[in-house]
Amino acid sequence: MTYGYNGQILRVDLSRGATSVDAVDELFCRKYLGGAGFVSYFLLKELQQGIDSLGPGNKLIFALGPVTGVPLPGSGRHCVGAKSPLTGGYAKSESGGFWGAELKYAGYDAIVVEGKAEKPVYLWIHDGEASIRGASHLWGKNTKETQETIRAELGDSLIRVAAIGPAGENLVRVACIMNDLKDAAGRGGMGAVMGSKNLKAIAVRGHKRPKLAEPERIKELRQWVLAHRELWASFAEYGTGAAMEAWVATGNIPVRNFLDGEFPEIVEISPTALRDKIRIKMEGCYACPVRCKKVVKVDEPYSVDPAYGGPEYETLAMIGSNCGVSDLKAIARGNELCNAYSLDTISTGGVVAFAMECFENGLLTTKDTDGIELRFGNAEAMLKIIDLIAKREGIGDLLAEGTAWAAQKIGKGAMEFAMQVKGIEIPAHEPRLKAAMGLGYAVNPHGADHNASLHDTFISQPGAFFDRVKPLGILEPLPADDLGPRKVAMFRDVHLFRIAQDNLVLCLFLPYDPEQAANILAAVTGWRTSTTELLRVAERTLTMARSFNIREGLSAADDKLPNRFFQPKRNGVLSTKFYDPEQLERAKSYYYTLMGWDAKTGIPTPEKLQELGIEQVAGI
Amino acid sequence: MTYGYNGQILRVDLSRGATSVDAVDELFCRKYLGGAGFVSYFLLKELQQGIDSLGPGNKLIFALGPVTGVPLPGSGRHCVGAKSPLTGGYAKSESGGFWGAELKYAGYDAIVVEGKAEKPVYLWIHDGEASIRGASHLWGKNTKETQETIRAELGDSLIRVAAIGPAGENLVRVACIMNDLKDAAGRGGMGAVMGSKNLKAIAVRGHKRPKLAEPERIKELRQWVLAHRELWASFAEYGTGAAMEAWVATGNIPVRNFLDGEFPEIVEISPTALRDKIRIKMEGCYACPVRCKKVVKVDEPYSVDPAYGGPEYETLAMIGSNCGVSDLKAIARGNELCNAYSLDTISTGGVVAFAMECFENGLLTTKDTDGIELRFGNAEAMLKIIDLIAKREGIGDLLAEGTAWAAQKIGKGAMEFAMQVKGIEIPAHEPRLKAAMGLGYAVNPHGADHNASLHDTFISQPGAFFDRVKPLGILEPLPADDLGPRKVAMFRDVHLFRIAQDNLVLCLFLPYDPEQAANILAAVTGWRTSTTELLRVAERTLTMARSFNIREGLSAADDKLPNRFFQPKRNGVLSTKFYDPEQLERAKSYYYTLMGWDAKTGIPTPEKLQELGIEQVAGI
Repeated sequence: MTYGYNGQILRVDLSRGATSVDAVDELFCRKYLGGAGFVSYFLLKELQQGIDSLGPGNKLIFALGPVTGVPLPGSGRHCVGAKSPLTGGYAKSESGGFWGAELKYAGYDAIVVEGKAEKPVYLWIHDGEASIRGASHLWGKNTKETQETIRAELGDSLIRVAAIGPAGENLVRVACIMNDLKDAAGRGGMGAVMGSKNLKAIAVRGHKRPKLAEPERIKELRQWVLAHRELWASFAEYGTGAAMEAWVATGNIPVRNFLDGEFPEIVEISPTALRDKIRIKMEGCYACPVRCKKVVKVDEPYSVDPAYGGPEYETLAMIGSNCGVSDLKAIARGNELCNAYSLDTISTGGVVAFAMECFENGLLTTKDTDGIELRFGNAEAMLKIIDLIAKREGIGDLLAEGTAWAAQKIGKGAMEFAMQVKGIEIPAHEPRLKAAMGLGYAVNPHGADHNASLHDTFISQPGAFFDRVKPLGILEPLPADDLGPRKVAMFRDVHLFRIAQDNLVLCLFLPYDPEQAANILAAVTGWRTSTTELLRVAERTLTMARSFNIREGLSAADDKLPNRFFQPKRNGVLSTKFYDPEQLERAKSYYYTLMGWDAKTGIPTPEKLQELGIEQVAGI
Repeated sequence: MTYGYNGQILRVDLSRGATSVDAVDELFCRKYLGGAGFVSYFLLKELQQGIDSLGPGNKLIFALGPVTGVPLPGSGRHCVGAKSPLTGGYAKSESGGFWGAELKYAGYDAIVVEGKAEKPVYLWIHDGEASIRGASHLWGKNTKETQETIRAELGDSLIRVAAIGPAGENLVRVACIMNDLKDAAGRGGMGAVMGSKNLKAIAVRGHKRPKLAEPERIKELRQWVLAHRELWASFAEYGTGAAMEAWVATGNIPVRNFLDGEFPEIVEISPTALRDKIRIKMEGCYACPVRCKKVVKVDEPYSVDPAYGGPEYETLAMIGSNCGVSDLKAIARGNELCNAYSLDTISTGGVVAFAMECFENGLLTTKDTDGIELRFGNAEAMLKIIDLIAKREGIGDLLAEGTAWAAQKIGKGAMEFAMQVKGIEIPAHEPRLKAAMGLGYAVNPHGADHNASLHDTFISQPGAFFDRVKPLGILEPLPADDLGPRKVAMFRDVHLFRIAQDNLVLCLFLPYDPEQAANILAAVTGWRTSTTELLRVAERTLTMARSFNIREGLSAADDKLPNRFFQPKRNGVLSTKFYDPEQLERAKSYYYTLMGWDAKTGIPTPEKLQELGIEQVAGI
């Protein structure tokens, strides 16, 4: 097999209780690369149209990239994908930690989980062998108990575990899959899909490192990262969200379900505050010196277990400011609950904020909430709702369906409070500030995702961030709120590069620019490659994802933003600014054109599918 | 100034007899790069719509790239551009040798020649100084006499001279600009533009080498070329056209104005025959070990001066097989005449073959030709016609207008014999064999050019040539006659890479792949760049050229092929194959789509111009 790959994809048919292996060749690997590329391929190629995302017809794919497990900073990631129970369309989500590298060492490049087990099971994969084991004794346990039990019964404390907690078991649509307790394949409801298959966990252990074509070059790249601490020092010191205080000033932080701009309490929940008050250390992923993961310990009024890490920026904002919550310890506790239950903190924060706004406006009352005063700023209520969602108890059963579905059920105009795109809750970056970010939220196949888009503020002035896009031929900064053709093309390029990173799978917090990413791929595989090839494969990945959505009935009409963004904020810096819906439509149309999709419908043309060599994958 | 550039563009206003200097900054250099990019920029930005290509309103641009003059194989090239007297649209042509590197050392990145001198002049540029000198004493001289006279009067035998001979002076539309006697900016009639300005020559001498950002990396690349002789050995041994015998078997060689396939006499005129019979040595360009330039010496029946080099493949085919001529010495003599008179051997060969077919069919008679039996295979006639064209004597005055114009004047269906696109004679590669080459002939802004297109046979099977496109993400070979969406995209990518090479300016005979080309640019300039940026700038260059043509009245209707290609050859391997005109139309439309031009009209959309940041250059 080619360097960097095992050449083996594990098939697990839970209905039949059988495992098998698909061999993949170099052409397949180079054409689809890995991670999101593999996910897009298998979903488009193998899923029946219209299947129930929570039924046995869905497939859950865990995919590594050529970079996964390479001794290089940013290589400790894997990608999970399936038909999304939140959107009914394409979903994929990346997670960090150590699980992905371990799976690579265990001999596989991906796992395709099919069918549904009769009773709870878990997978045990080690050194080229895979077995399906009973998990009835694990059902109902949180992720830490699950990991500990599995390690104990298999007698190896170095086993890496990806698992769901009760939220996944209960088919909560905002459930995620946790690995290494702190890392989440968060978005799109992957935890619910895993739960629907009665699959509690995947435990992996391996000892075989795939050979690298140019290990010396990988070493040089690692040295480069170490020598340029200034490019990631802020991550190392604060974790994500270092500039959170400044972001209130720019308007980037969501406050009270994206209604407000002002939130002076930010100083109480920012990463700086967290460091000073509850942080005990930082931790990192496989092979990474950045160590951007906060670990917190709280004893009172809640006990927060450091095993579950600490809140990322998205968590601080989504269950913090976006719920009007300024109680740092409560946020830390909420984070712990989400990780233990396997809940996506972004979507969970979004759905809680949505419920709070419904409550404030009388669409929900204490009758619905079993007495909880579900108001913005009520930290206790936020924690209680997280608990109810995971257990699908009381109001939690409704909110477990996600913002969009809950809003439909509530009716009475609740949809206006549902800050989501395609059913996915919007993360903590503001389109009224960042125009291309908004476009990305709208058009991204798996819905609103800040990591898949362009942070306009990073490229609105020269500097280290801008330098990173220069290899894409982007030479002149553009205003953050610009959404003309040049910005749209810039979005397209950066979006494709993000997808390229998700194909590799390479952490986007590392300061590698596109040329370095291509160099990494070359060093791992020995291929003569380039950024052009990286973006080309990304185009293929994206067009497969888009084609999947089209087949599932999504259309250009689903590429939209909540109306709220077309209005100014109630206060703060963006209280006079709003997103222009007509500009969005123009930008969408030009984006489709740039992608070779129909300018109106956004449907990839037959010629484009042929050009990308995926007409057979798409079944046309 | 940035590494690799002088930051200075020399303006020469011949009408006023004045020179001046434009400073260019790093952003300008990075946005337009050099060579073809500079040419496109100045033509689109500065030329008045509808000006006479042979009037003072035209501008003649000599542009270097960041690679010109770098101590690296393939760096001895420059680009010449103007509004073409052949097509009425965009023209640019590259030339090898030493002149470009010398101009770089003399302190400039480009020369923009404007207006028209009252009397013949030449330019003398040395070490940052430029002067306009009288050239009445040079007028009428051939290129060698011109070079010798200038070197003598300026007292420096190392002066490099680009000059026109009588053909340029006589405004022959197929005239080229010769430098170093053996190297031609051949296509598009650049020699006529130079003649129209009463500019006989540009003599350059310089001593300042621009600094390189990473000289060590350049050295490594040079070493890589030297270490991989197998990748260019055939050029070194035979020059261009090493496989000429085999190309008769594939049908690639034009025979008798593209009518026939069979030409057993190929063994008498091939580079192998040339080596065995009349070659005395090989020579090379600046800094290049490949030395692909044949030098021949003939004493009888003609005397051929080795100073003029020897015939390239294109010359062997165009004034050889394409005229039915199998007399190697006559071809060598024809080549010498063209170089001495400053005639493009491709267009000249094309126009002679056209005239021969007219004669064979009675559209021209001995009355028109002053008694010359202008039949296919008549070597003497071929030589005589070259002479008449250069001097615009007799039938030569008509043929000096180029194939398309001459065909119009002759009428009587002569246009069916005019093997040209947009007025440019078709070079010696066969569209009925190579489908994308045909598409390239059709859509290329400066008309049929084999170097701007994709040689389908190179990518129809795995091997060293195919490996060279892999970094573009092209993974699977395609049949040579395929012209589906995947081939069209492959053409688009390779076409853009060719333009990127013409921007750098980097010889395309060197085996650098796209990633190496990006590495070269990075090493020269210190920019963090990539293939994506290279192709992006190429897209800008091409879209400017296209916009120029649109402004001058050219349209999608001009993106066509001669009808002959829609019929099989009269004999030989392609006697049952023809180019499908409907397939060409579909391919054109998809190509326009891929380029972001209107799918029907091929006009770059306003959004595309904005996206590329050239809306102001285009004046909209």
